[in-house]
Amino acid sequence: MVAVLKPGIPQEKIDNLIDWFKSRSLDVHVSKGQYHTILGLIGDTSSIDIDLLRSLDIIESVMRISEPFKSANRKFHPESTVIDINGIKLGGGHFQIIAGPCSVESKEQIVGIAQSAKAAGATLLRGGAFKPRTSPYDFQGLKAEGIEFLLEAKKQTGMPIVTEIMNANHLPLFEDVDVIQVGARNMQNFELLKEVGKTKKPVLLKRGLANTLQELLMSAEYIMSEGNPNVMLCERGIRTFETYTRNTLDLSAIPLLKDLTHLPVVVDPSHATGIARLVKPMAMAAVAAGADAVMIEVHNDPQHALSDGQQSVTPAEFTDIAQRIKKIREVL
Amino acid sequence: MVAVLKPGIPQEKIDNLIDWFKSRSLDVHVSKGQYHTILGLIGDTSSIDIDLLRSLDIIESVMRISEPFKSANRKFHPESTVIDINGIKLGGGHFQIIAGPCSVESKEQIVGIAQSAKAAGATLLRGGAFKPRTSPYDFQGLKAEGIEFLLEAKKQTGMPIVTEIMNANHLPLFEDVDVIQVGARNMQNFELLKEVGKTKKPVLLKRGLANTLQELLMSAEYIMSEGNPNVMLCERGIRTFETYTRNTLDLSAIPLLKDLTHLPVVVDPSHATGIARLVKPMAMAAVAAGADAVMIEVHNDPQHALSDGQQSVTPAEFTDIAQRIKKIREVL
Amino acid sequence: MVAVLKPGIPQEKIDNLIDWFKSRSLDVHVSKGQYHTILGLIGDTSSIDIDLLRSLDIIESVMRISEPFKSANRKFHPESTVIDINGIKLGGGHFQIIAGPCSVESKEQIVGIAQSAKAAGATLLRGGAFKPRTSPYDFQGLKAEGIEFLLEAKKQTGMPIVTEIMNANHLPLFEDVDVIQVGARNMQNFELLKEVGKTKKPVLLKRGLANTLQELLMSAEYIMSEGNPNVMLCERGIRTFETYTRNTLDLSAIPLLKDLTHLPVVVDPSHATGIARLVKPMAMAAVAAGADAVMIEVHNDPQHALSDGQQSVTPAEFTDIAQRIKKIREVL
Amino acid sequence: MVAVLKPGIPQEKIDNLIDWFKSRSLDVHVSKGQYHTILGLIGDTSSIDIDLLRSLDIIESVMRISEPFKSANRKFHPESTVIDINGIKLGGGHFQIIAGPCSVESKEQIVGIAQSAKAAGATLLRGGAFKPRTSPYDFQGLKAEGIEFLLEAKKQTGMPIVTEIMNANHLPLFEDVDVIQVGARNMQNFELLKEVGKTKKPVLLKRGLANTLQELLMSAEYIMSEGNPNVMLCERGIRTFETYTRNTLDLSAIPLLKDLTHLPVVVDPSHATGIARLVKPMAMAAVAAGADAVMIEVHNDPQHALSDGQQSVTPAEFTDIAQRIKKIREVL
Repeated sequence: MVAVLKPGIPQEKIDNLIDWFKSRSLDVHVSKGQYHTILGLIGDTSSIDIDLLRSLDIIESVMRISEPFKSANRKFHPESTVIDINGIKLGGGHFQIIAGPCSVESKEQIVGIAQSAKAAGATLLRGGAFKPRTSPYDFQGLKAEGIEFLLEAKKQTGMPIVTEIMNANHLPLFEDVDVIQVGARNMQNFELLKEVGKTKKPVLLKRGLANTLQELLMSAEYIMSEGNPNVMLCERGIRTFETYTRNTLDLSAIPLLKDLTHLPVVVDPSHATGIARLVKPMAMAAVAAGADAVMIEVHNDPQHALSDGQQSVTPAEFTDIAQRIKKIREVL
Repeated sequence: MVAVLKPGIPQEKIDNLIDWFKSRSLDVHVSKGQYHTILGLIGDTSSIDIDLLRSLDIIESVMRISEPFKSANRKFHPESTVIDINGIKLGGGHFQIIAGPCSVESKEQIVGIAQSAKAAGATLLRGGAFKPRTSPYDFQGLKAEGIEFLLEAKKQTGMPIVTEIMNANHLPLFEDVDVIQVGARNMQNFELLKEVGKTKKPVLLKRGLANTLQELLMSAEYIMSEGNPNVMLCERGIRTFETYTRNTLDLSAIPLLKDLTHLPVVVDPSHATGIARLVKPMAMAAVAAGADAVMIEVHNDPQHALSDGQQSVTPAEFTDIAQRIKKIREVL
Repeated sequence: MVAVLKPGIPQEKIDNLIDWFKSRSLDVHVSKGQYHTILGLIGDTSSIDIDLLRSLDIIESVMRISEPFKSANRKFHPESTVIDINGIKLGGGHFQIIAGPCSVESKEQIVGIAQSAKAAGATLLRGGAFKPRTSPYDFQGLKAEGIEFLLEAKKQTGMPIVTEIMNANHLPLFEDVDVIQVGARNMQNFELLKEVGKTKKPVLLKRGLANTLQELLMSAEYIMSEGNPNVMLCERGIRTFETYTRNTLDLSAIPLLKDLTHLPVVVDPSHATGIARLVKPMAMAAVAAGADAVMIEVHNDPQHALSDGQQSVTPAEFTDIAQRIKKIREVL
Repeated sequence: MVAVLKPGIPQEKIDNLIDWFKSRSLDVHVSKGQYHTILGLIGDTSSIDIDLLRSLDIIESVMRISEPFKSANRKFHPESTVIDINGIKLGGGHFQIIAGPCSVESKEQIVGIAQSAKAAGATLLRGGAFKPRTSPYDFQGLKAEGIEFLLEAKKQTGMPIVTEIMNANHLPLFEDVDVIQVGARNMQNFELLKEVGKTKKPVLLKRGLANTLQELLMSAEYIMSEGNPNVMLCERGIRTFETYTRNTLDLSAIPLLKDLTHLPVVVDPSHATGIARLVKPMAMAAVAAGADAVMIEVHNDPQHALSDGQQSVTPAEFTDIAQRIKKIREVL
């Protein structure tokens, strides 16, 4: 950690500050410049509250040198994490395609999509049972019944299932769910993160609409610090001024996250763009950029989807996407 | 609602769509242009899923004319809502100053600040017991004990208290809390919104870092649709590319929200800017723009605050702010 | 164009507005809803000032149905434009790699890089002679001498050259330049756009840091409306809240632009990310998403680049990138 | 400047780097931590290219301690600059109201507005002769004729005039203009900045839609470094995700800029919000936050404005705004 002092601070105040740092078992290296004095703090600075330091009236600025994330940090864990999802490996060179509808609507619907998605190359089934909707008047999902239907689709196809949790009190319903998804709007619902951290289940953690990659890693840290190392990070678009797309898919997040962390990176081009015809090029781009998995919304009848139909592709389109992805994987 | 069709759609498909709208009890007015056909849908369109409509391959674009919020809409409730907070009125011309520390640290601290804030003109006491922190390794608040200390300060000063909830399971601890705050990171934690909606307590709902005003109103709608009309909206800065300030305080939200809704608007200049010396000018600006209340972080000893010290003002500074605000109120 | 009227407008005012539209040779279709009256305007609405309409006190909102860009619009020009750059075709299936240093520093440097870039597969040479720098105290480029050195590199390698213009008065210096680049900061320097529009030279128009795709197309329209159809659009990252990368590369712009316009789309992953090790994955992703060209900063000695060294790749890395791009092109 | 080295760098490489810094007349203070070595660079670091440093493969991060702006920096020029605009003082406690239409449309229009604006309390007249428009098909202003009409209004009312320049070649037309405005879209048109810097005329420099305050100050630096100290900075809204307002007015820019620089700060609430009814509350808020001037769009007949009518207020409304501003000024 580096602290830059304001110009013209009396030596006595500087000495007091240095003593305070030393009382925290930190070594302090002092560099005096023409205008500024710079303090380099050596040792474990994780207990120092950077906001508190900044509030001191003798401080101009403070910069953290070490990343604040530890369990997720590749520096301390150089090997890529491979997550075992009921026998299917994801990460560290193991690539998977997650597919399924935005919302589970009926047993027939989810079983039908699961079968066609599996035939086309998908290895994990997704589907929303609890749906976070901006409006209280919109369809909120089939809830517990939706999870039952997903489990039926899992039984019939053997595909592990991914579905979103919105309330830690619902965890008992997720007993047989293979991957618990934490949605973008709950990325900083720290109470929920702690509770899914107490399970050992794989967690798909979506990046919030306006969250930095460092915040995403800190939210992963919440889950990991409770004892659950099985975290996948999911880029699904960030909020910008551009209005043609629903969000802006930040694909540079893929190689950046792979530098910073050992956790696998999943990309969701469907929610990011909100436009079905962009899903194919963006899925291919995500794979070319090094994603460990893509998550694609597939619907057997996009015109009658109860939610997010706009971003769904048909099984035929999905088959084409899966084949092109496979070819790009071969190039890498 | 207005739906614009793509060019060159066969009449039969258009007729099918119109029949479908009519089956939903909507009247349809058709305008045929050189390239586009426009359908004006007349009636209660709230049950129409706008994303679904957009997904149809014959549709170019869909625009909602009526705002999707109802209970919060000033059109249907022209009079400004006045919220009664344990005898103190807020909204509809009643202006209040909410003050207190970011975190409750001890009984002495919170009682001391409450007394000096009250003396300076504050009418409501705020203080964090449960603290949402980006890092799991940062101080998370005194929790239940923090609420006890707040209640002690309330007892000694008579000031109603405002404190944040992070988990609906903690609601029993909020029995004697006067205003429940829902933080920016939980603005779209819809499960939490529903639960605070089931209480009748005044709720201070903070705008999320990247949420539009319409989304803020839809989140208020979640609370109100459960039967709780006592919602205050709080602007506390949005995330932009500017890095000097922690967030960008969007003061135009004040007059805009007052047009759109009858609910009171509160402004938090402390969290928005993250810089103590900006709190005074921004609080004055918020009042000049028509805010119903400002919420100001005050600390008896900013250099030893356990969290967010950077944005705290001292009691002496707070006294000056409160006096200037009073004068601006007189001008309005 | 669709205009939605406010509730409760007297019929006489509505009739006056309709008469005014009719005097502008527009047909008006009226749909009366429960709260709102909607006017569908049929005919050539391009002469209607949408801001003026919105300013009328009887208007709630106005929506343009037709895109405001014409010459660049794929609807009126379905075939993809192929630009001939001194014999090299770009667009409509013709893919090119543009490579070179951020700044031209010396004759030896630019000739050396041109030779190694050509050997590795680059077909166009880029290099900055006039450099837009945020600070007046930073290196501003070799200017006219830089262009001379570029022309020497062109002579020795046969590669057409791309270089940025900052001032229309410099156009005589660009006589033998093959592609004139308009930088992101000048994307809405409309006077400059008009002047490059008066030449017939291919123009590489970079998207501004905070400009929408529609604004990018309107700037292309400025060039095209002066008689120059040879415009290439370049995505180079937009400004967001994320701070790890310099900008956020918006790759969904590629398929979106290809839908909206017939003009070729170029991607610059070097400036977008500002991090050399992200250039390879992002270049590959851009190609997978359908870019017509990528522009890559190459430097023979990244540690001594006079500007933007951080985002430069070495000739060896560039060779690897060019080969991988070629393989991805084969998959498409 | 502080440079943080990557972990595990051989001492020889560190020594080479230190020698290179010393050859640039810098002193280097070395702090060795557990993982990182930190170099504090003491002396005039303005000649060091921070991007170049970051590109070195032994460097983890580089932070500039001193602000890169010099002439505009309050540290080196503590007294607030007062700009003399043809006898009217602006800055350093001298507050002014700039008013006028977005576009000059006719001699009668501009003279009429000038007279009513002056009567209501405006001291400077603004009006657009050269108009930057997103579309080449929109009205581009009366150009030279517009300036003539402004000069006529100046003659009749005695009000100094403010109008925008878009092309340095037009400077001769600005001979008798009192304040040259550089628009938001040209904030980083560095060639234009240099040319207006060569005049001695007061310049009103508008913040770009996506430009940081530091970039705004660097653009002021371009003007000042050419010898023109008469720069006013103008906040006029930045681009964010919010769509209700055209831009988000960043009023915290006022106290921040006043800390960082001695230059006056002007606020334009009309362009920022794009909504006439928000102009009054935002103008009042700007004054309460400490602005040295506000610039308000006034139109004698908002329903027939040729451009930007939506954000114009009538002379009657302007009179009310000017009176309320006066009262808030008295409170400060």
